[in-house]
Amino acid sequence: MQIVGPYLLFIGDATDALSIKMARGVADFRPELCIGEMQVEGCTVTTGLPQLTIAEGVAKGAKTFVLGFANSGGVLDPKWHPYILEALAAGMDVVSGLHEKMSDVPELAQAAAANKVKLLDIRHPDGEFKTGTAVPRKGKRLLTIGTDCSVGKMYTSLSLEKAMKDQNMDVDFRATGQCGILIAGQGVAIDCVISDFISGATESLSPDNNEQHWDIIEGQGSLSHPAFAGVSMGLLHGSQPDALVICHALNRHHMRGLPHTAFPSLQETIALNLQAAKLTNPNVKVAGIAVNTSSVSVEEGRAICQQISDELSLPCVDPVRDGCDAIVERLTQEF
Amino acid sequence: MQIVGPYLLFIGDATDALSIKMARGVADFRPELCIGEMQVEGCTVTTGLPQLTIAEGVAKGAKTFVLGFANSGGVLDPKWHPYILEALAAGMDVVSGLHEKMSDVPELAQAAAANKVKLLDIRHPDGEFKTGTAVPRKGKRLLTIGTDCSVGKMYTSLSLEKAMKDQNMDVDFRATGQCGILIAGQGVAIDCVISDFISGATESLSPDNNEQHWDIIEGQGSLSHPAFAGVSMGLLHGSQPDALVICHALNRHHMRGLPHTAFPSLQETIALNLQAAKLTNPNVKVAGIAVNTSSVSVEEGRAICQQISDELSLPCVDPVRDGCDAIVERLTQEF
Repeated sequence: MQIVGPYLLFIGDATDALSIKMARGVADFRPELCIGEMQVEGCTVTTGLPQLTIAEGVAKGAKTFVLGFANSGGVLDPKWHPYILEALAAGMDVVSGLHEKMSDVPELAQAAAANKVKLLDIRHPDGEFKTGTAVPRKGKRLLTIGTDCSVGKMYTSLSLEKAMKDQNMDVDFRATGQCGILIAGQGVAIDCVISDFISGATESLSPDNNEQHWDIIEGQGSLSHPAFAGVSMGLLHGSQPDALVICHALNRHHMRGLPHTAFPSLQETIALNLQAAKLTNPNVKVAGIAVNTSSVSVEEGRAICQQISDELSLPCVDPVRDGCDAIVERLTQEF
Repeated sequence: MQIVGPYLLFIGDATDALSIKMARGVADFRPELCIGEMQVEGCTVTTGLPQLTIAEGVAKGAKTFVLGFANSGGVLDPKWHPYILEALAAGMDVVSGLHEKMSDVPELAQAAAANKVKLLDIRHPDGEFKTGTAVPRKGKRLLTIGTDCSVGKMYTSLSLEKAMKDQNMDVDFRATGQCGILIAGQGVAIDCVISDFISGATESLSPDNNEQHWDIIEGQGSLSHPAFAGVSMGLLHGSQPDALVICHALNRHHMRGLPHTAFPSLQETIALNLQAAKLTNPNVKVAGIAVNTSSVSVEEGRAICQQISDELSLPCVDPVRDGCDAIVERLTQEF
């Protein structure tokens, strides 16, 4: 699966900034991929991109129409069908990260076939995966792992990729969630893979490469999250990471969505992940810590990062506020 | 999903005893569920059950026609369609544990609908699962876990259930693989669940129950197997086990299918699984060790079990040769 840019981002009638996370992610990280945004009446949020109709987007070169909004059930509301049909008729592929598949709607499937364009339901991996083999692969791999879900693993991965590219390093971001896939144009929504194939699908995501090449693999979930640790474990084993970057958000007191659960310390998170990662790469090491400090002031955030860095003898940054150069410096020196 | 007994076991033209593991499993563990066996020309193996045609099976009360064979690709060969159609026309449900779904073959789906019977593709879970919550559930749970895949977790689980029933304990076997599902008449093929829902599906498999009730949950894979540890981890967290029984097979030197991998010790397996299990049940303990000693003599096997028992201060049995009474005794005393 390859998503062809540039994109026209459709955000419908969204009124919640969080619900257009997918559109904002790609607008922030790949502005060169985004021709414009399209809203309908009632929409109160924006990515800040220019407003375009489908016809205008196509005229400006858009190749893919992106449903850039989400909702709690992942439902594809039939009210969006006319917009999808219009985009298909105009010759664009259409991307959706919703749970309900466009390709399961006969009218949409027929229109895509008739116009020789694609419906890309990126939450539903279309590959035939194999079970993992744990055979070592060439090249270097970094996996972002989390103390919890939603602590900034994708943002950290992309920030690392950017810092490494700035230093002319040979690097690829490997996406494992729908936002990341839209940004990378390819990838595997790993939590949507049949569980037998978690590590095998991850192996296929970062294949053999040049000795000096880095794959920056987007982590998912957390080994300490009772709902998602299975995904995190398979992703860790399949990635065979040389380097782990631990992602954390300040002021969490329980695992996301589960108020009755305990939150692990950074030390516990490091120990647990190194232990598990050694099964497929005995030389794995931690390269640094990335902390989302947005809940405190810049000064307080910097002081906390410095304290963590001193305690763990590792570079510690807020990728949003400070970038990932300090971690990349460690990578170039010690990996 | 509920598989209705009794069964007529169809083993086709199988020539390899391992390929009819599903038929043999149910014939061994639930003989009262099995009316008979049906072969076609070329078949050289048997479960030992009486040979019956579909008409004879129905006349004797068979409610479900079971495809009791497997093949490496999980392919549903079209040569079996006529037999499935005959069974459907005779009013039987049909069960398959193959990867290719019967319900994806229009002719079979139509025949099932026309005869108001079911096609049960038990390798494909049909439930709508939720993500795990880790909310503690009432009742007691035992999970069989393995040093490796295919070390006897299902056999041990069923042997434990039998020993507990013999003592009039309130117990249910909870199946997580297709052989187990056929034996139990229900369950979830956990390695076929979308990875986001591994622990959630496991939670639904062993719901709240009476304080003295035991669920014996069939384990899958191994935390030390790089292909399947994600499944094992989600199953462990979702099970919230009070008791673990460690299953092991003698004379393994690497993880199944992966000659380049190391094999864990029993001590390592215990430590790794207790650590992970404590996330959802801090009171988890090991109740005993089950060893497949079939590769050595009975005397040698008993000596090895005794040695393991002495070293670990836990009951250690070969469930096939000795049954699981020693482990059940520990359960009744200490859990």
